[in-house]
Amino acid sequence: MDGLDALFYPKSVAVIGASNRPLTIGHRIVSNLLANRFTGTVYPVNPKGEPILDLPTFASIADVPGEVDLAHVIVRNTQAAEALEACAAKGVKVAIVNSSGFKETGAAGAALEEGLVAIGRRTGMRLFGPNCQGVMNTDPRVSLYSNFTFAEMTPGHLSMVCQGGGVAEVINNYFGMQGVGQRMYASNGNACDISIAEILEYYGGDDATRVIVLHLESLADPAEFLRRVRPVAARKPILALKSGTTREGARAVASHTGGLMADDAVTDALFEAAGILRFTSLAALCETAQAFAMQPVPRGNRVGIVTNAGSPAIIVTDELVSSGMLVPDLGENAKASLGDTLQAIASIANPIDMMATAAEAEFGAALAALVDDPGLDAAVVCFMTPFFVDTGGIARAIEAQAKRTDKTLIAVAMTNPEGKQEWRETVAQVRRAGVPVYYFPGSAVQALVHMDRFRRLRDRPREEPPDLEVDTAAARTAFAAADVGAGGFLAPEAAGAALRAYGVPLVCERRAMAWEEVRAAAREVGYPVALKAEAPSLVHKTDAGGVALAIDDEAGLERAYRSLAERFGAPPGLRFLVQRYLAGGTEVIVGGARAAGLGALVMFGLGGIHVELLKDVVFKLAPLTRGEAEAMLGGIKAAPLLDGFRGAPAIDRAPLVDVLLRVSRLLADHPEIAELDLNPVLAFADGSRTAVVDARIRLGRGT
Amino acid sequence: MDGLDALFYPKSVAVIGASNRPLTIGHRIVSNLLANRFTGTVYPVNPKGEPILDLPTFASIADVPGEVDLAHVIVRNTQAAEALEACAAKGVKVAIVNSSGFKETGAAGAALEEGLVAIGRRTGMRLFGPNCQGVMNTDPRVSLYSNFTFAEMTPGHLSMVCQGGGVAEVINNYFGMQGVGQRMYASNGNACDISIAEILEYYGGDDATRVIVLHLESLADPAEFLRRVRPVAARKPILALKSGTTREGARAVASHTGGLMADDAVTDALFEAAGILRFTSLAALCETAQAFAMQPVPRGNRVGIVTNAGSPAIIVTDELVSSGMLVPDLGENAKASLGDTLQAIASIANPIDMMATAAEAEFGAALAALVDDPGLDAAVVCFMTPFFVDTGGIARAIEAQAKRTDKTLIAVAMTNPEGKQEWRETVAQVRRAGVPVYYFPGSAVQALVHMDRFRRLRDRPREEPPDLEVDTAAARTAFAAADVGAGGFLAPEAAGAALRAYGVPLVCERRAMAWEEVRAAAREVGYPVALKAEAPSLVHKTDAGGVALAIDDEAGLERAYRSLAERFGAPPGLRFLVQRYLAGGTEVIVGGARAAGLGALVMFGLGGIHVELLKDVVFKLAPLTRGEAEAMLGGIKAAPLLDGFRGAPAIDRAPLVDVLLRVSRLLADHPEIAELDLNPVLAFADGSRTAVVDARIRLGRGT
Repeated sequence: MDGLDALFYPKSVAVIGASNRPLTIGHRIVSNLLANRFTGTVYPVNPKGEPILDLPTFASIADVPGEVDLAHVIVRNTQAAEALEACAAKGVKVAIVNSSGFKETGAAGAALEEGLVAIGRRTGMRLFGPNCQGVMNTDPRVSLYSNFTFAEMTPGHLSMVCQGGGVAEVINNYFGMQGVGQRMYASNGNACDISIAEILEYYGGDDATRVIVLHLESLADPAEFLRRVRPVAARKPILALKSGTTREGARAVASHTGGLMADDAVTDALFEAAGILRFTSLAALCETAQAFAMQPVPRGNRVGIVTNAGSPAIIVTDELVSSGMLVPDLGENAKASLGDTLQAIASIANPIDMMATAAEAEFGAALAALVDDPGLDAAVVCFMTPFFVDTGGIARAIEAQAKRTDKTLIAVAMTNPEGKQEWRETVAQVRRAGVPVYYFPGSAVQALVHMDRFRRLRDRPREEPPDLEVDTAAARTAFAAADVGAGGFLAPEAAGAALRAYGVPLVCERRAMAWEEVRAAAREVGYPVALKAEAPSLVHKTDAGGVALAIDDEAGLERAYRSLAERFGAPPGLRFLVQRYLAGGTEVIVGGARAAGLGALVMFGLGGIHVELLKDVVFKLAPLTRGEAEAMLGGIKAAPLLDGFRGAPAIDRAPLVDVLLRVSRLLADHPEIAELDLNPVLAFADGSRTAVVDARIRLGRGT
Repeated sequence: MDGLDALFYPKSVAVIGASNRPLTIGHRIVSNLLANRFTGTVYPVNPKGEPILDLPTFASIADVPGEVDLAHVIVRNTQAAEALEACAAKGVKVAIVNSSGFKETGAAGAALEEGLVAIGRRTGMRLFGPNCQGVMNTDPRVSLYSNFTFAEMTPGHLSMVCQGGGVAEVINNYFGMQGVGQRMYASNGNACDISIAEILEYYGGDDATRVIVLHLESLADPAEFLRRVRPVAARKPILALKSGTTREGARAVASHTGGLMADDAVTDALFEAAGILRFTSLAALCETAQAFAMQPVPRGNRVGIVTNAGSPAIIVTDELVSSGMLVPDLGENAKASLGDTLQAIASIANPIDMMATAAEAEFGAALAALVDDPGLDAAVVCFMTPFFVDTGGIARAIEAQAKRTDKTLIAVAMTNPEGKQEWRETVAQVRRAGVPVYYFPGSAVQALVHMDRFRRLRDRPREEPPDLEVDTAAARTAFAAADVGAGGFLAPEAAGAALRAYGVPLVCERRAMAWEEVRAAAREVGYPVALKAEAPSLVHKTDAGGVALAIDDEAGLERAYRSLAERFGAPPGLRFLVQRYLAGGTEVIVGGARAAGLGALVMFGLGGIHVELLKDVVFKLAPLTRGEAEAMLGGIKAAPLLDGFRGAPAIDRAPLVDVLLRVSRLLADHPEIAELDLNPVLAFADGSRTAVVDARIRLGRGT
């Protein structure tokens, strides 16, 4: 038995804390296992030893005659350790710890939880939870419902893992109400041992799982998550919601599952790197998962629409187009076939708008025209259920086309299934044909938009971060020898040395103190120059007036020198930085920051107002691939400025991409960098002039 | 009988084209009227004269014995005129024309529709439709269901007017399924006579209508809409969806209700001026309308949350906070009361997180603490229905608090009402208590966010556009005398004269041709100056290199003059513009454009990349109130740049507000202005320097 098989395919389940009282969790687990026809053996364990639901009960797990793969433990938090020791002694492979009162309640609970983790580590028994609900597996080979809740279990292709039990039940009930079958379910609360990522990896290996729903509150090990989940997401859509994205929400998460992963940009970068579809709305996630579970992912973004009600189809059109999808004209063949065969068509166009009297033949012909049109990738059938139409015929028409096409079909049935038995049956029949049915037009659009988003994520080129010629040792020496000042900032020379070791182009510069040295430095770097006063006390040189730019000659240099020297007197450590002055470049900013447990993030944005005021920035995980670095340049809203705007020349992007790659490699290679800020980097039409003008590196343990 | 009373409170309805065949519209209207116990008299009219549903039928409306308030006409499009003539001869007050085949089908249909309008105008009979569904009124005094569809009618406080019949039914069915009672319903298709605005005005005067839902495809008379609807929206929330917002959608609207109002910025400005809440999602509109129909609008944006399931409440928290709502800490009294009375609380905070075992007493105490907390304006109760809890008790607790508070209560019931009869009853009981019940957390958040948006719209100061000293006659003279060039552009002097007549500050400038004149002009305006080549062929002076800035003295002026003269030779009409050069101002852009049927829109944005590249602009209807003009300055994303950024001084906003007010007045007073572009206007810390540097005005009939 490999991996998590003992959790999802146990041959036997012991329920530690089983109970005779119907309204207890200890009773519910046993009755759920039996009611859902678990194919293995159930062993209720209870000190009193009285039979539970006609099963023989055992006073202790040691008394159980056979082997126990899975133990579901429902005892007080303070008794959990003892129960686990007994389980481990029995040779239990996985234990679900239902009880709460652990890390989520503070330090004392966290200590209790550590105790459980230690037992698991010592004995090799895996732990699921604590503070959790349990698992389900609808595979008829096991038919496992080791969970205390009350949603029904219908076999299907959607698997879910949710940290929050409440959210798990919201999702679970939703799919139950929509008639969407499920495959596996796990709600593992504090996730002290078996991680969310392990479960996702397990789902990845399960052929019957077509789509995965993920609810996350915190991650103990984001790097492990990325490593395990990326290969899964490359094959199967993973739809995820992350809670605790606001300060208020994160505070609530801490008292809920005890975790904290508050930085939303980190979550974004992690999910994007993994290839996960992030949602901010639970409703949108659930509605969209339904489409992924039932229909193939479209090969493109061109959608045809057929309707018996004009105005809702216009809403479908508006929402598709404003979401970046295409609603193209019908092909000539489609138009011709419709003109020949259909009487009840008000408008042969896209949407195909039919009369309210349209029935099976008309819907069939119209849908066939859409699925046969080579210019379309998906079709939405959007229908009312008029009282004078056999709506079962509409369902049959949809079913017939669903059988003969591998294009994506989505239905919008704007009906009240409680209004007429026939309408309820119509909706059920379309669903049985594997076509998702939504009530509102927007839900269908949303599903198609996210399917298209998945297609683009899935089909993005797979590449590795490039090999770069860098001098790792030289950078390490710069960090080690570094004179680290207040707040952990590296001395400018050390920062420069580290960047140079990684091939990042710096503007030509020299440091000097006395006037003669400054003059010599300027001769070396060549005019025009910029002169900047540097001292540990001067963090923001420009704001302090410590900068003179565009100095054309020695006379100007001397004036600037005298003026700066007078303004600043002689603070400790005062020096002058003489830089080659680069006129007319485009200012960009490249940044980096440590992301706890996940390496580092690289940031890119335009200088000036764009980063600080407009927050027009992109983050990605280091190290970057070339494609990712290129995507960062194109990912900001102001990207057209890079290509020239109102007559300004386009900048050469290649050297900027190179800077991003090298900085990301530096961050990845040297975890001692807490923060890095190249501001500005100047970019030019002539790429050979690209240069970092100011660089700051802060060492530390990260934020 | 006043206004639309004959439509919504008829004493008698004649059904022209009534039928004996059950699956026809002519049958359905009669049966709907009878089934819903219309309190007046129904007169089926059909040439065959056979009884319909046991009612005496009349061969012609002329044969009807009594008076007829409302006629519901179901005949072919080509027979509609004849039917209407007969109705008018009988003295019918309002006729609903069900039939399609009018303006929505093209020119021939439009001519038919014009024929109907002419009959109405000549006879005084009002027309509703054509290409429409009908009306309903649940007021038991009339109980009118003059509509061919099939949704049930439950009395309540929500009235709707929808241009699209399909959308009307989607909304109608939704409220039916949610158990939300309705008041009046109108779906008037092409709206050839009785307008959407008249119906909204009528709903405004109906005391039982608390919230109005509007679906719009096109408007024949936006100005009438604004005039009639603004006073309604000031008292009652109007939630609106506009279809046809994309090019593809607008094309479909044209073939649907025959209208076209494609410019989305105009719709935005119109709805905002009217005080209407615009939605882009039909689902969001419907879900939110439910809350407005059932609950008071909160007095502020501070929300308390109570839950028996931690993880969904965290989603509520995240979504509230990221939408700009507050989830503040509980007050001391609330904390104390909870600490004293509640056992089953996991976390006394906001959200109040209770154990899954929490029942009536705990929910009651927690909800009471929230509604009694003076620091909160609304409460969300977010609950699962665990099998071991009497969930009816949770409903009773909510009901009890709903009775004693005027704060806003919203419920999220994450249950499957089909799972257990008890759960279905729990949900129904909460709804009967007047508390809306949603399934997903996000729906409750969305409702509160839009209620808060309505509160701010409703409570914005009511003011009139200010009286400004302007010289209307002088502007008119400038337009009349104007030498209008290619494309309708006014000569620069005329544009300047019109702006000066309205008190818009222009930079000091003179026009000249020969060098001596240029030199004299520069002496008049005073150095530094800018010199610009002007000719009808030079529309974009700067792009053509026809501008020299920051000229400090006569020598510089002469160099610039020679250079420009040489560059441009002597195109027809070449002149030189000598302007005072204003250094260091912040460039803003003020624009104006005619909006068909709606006066004009004023536009404001920052110069440079902000308008063209980042599309960071605000539009409002002219004429502006002072508050609106001030809101425009604050409405762009880059607004902080006006207040100084990284050490730049803040600009004086007052003179810019004044420019916006005066430009908006100019646009409102002179419909002959098609387009106006002040680009740039320079703004300074010293407001007295504010000046328009370049102005273009185009005359015409608008776009």
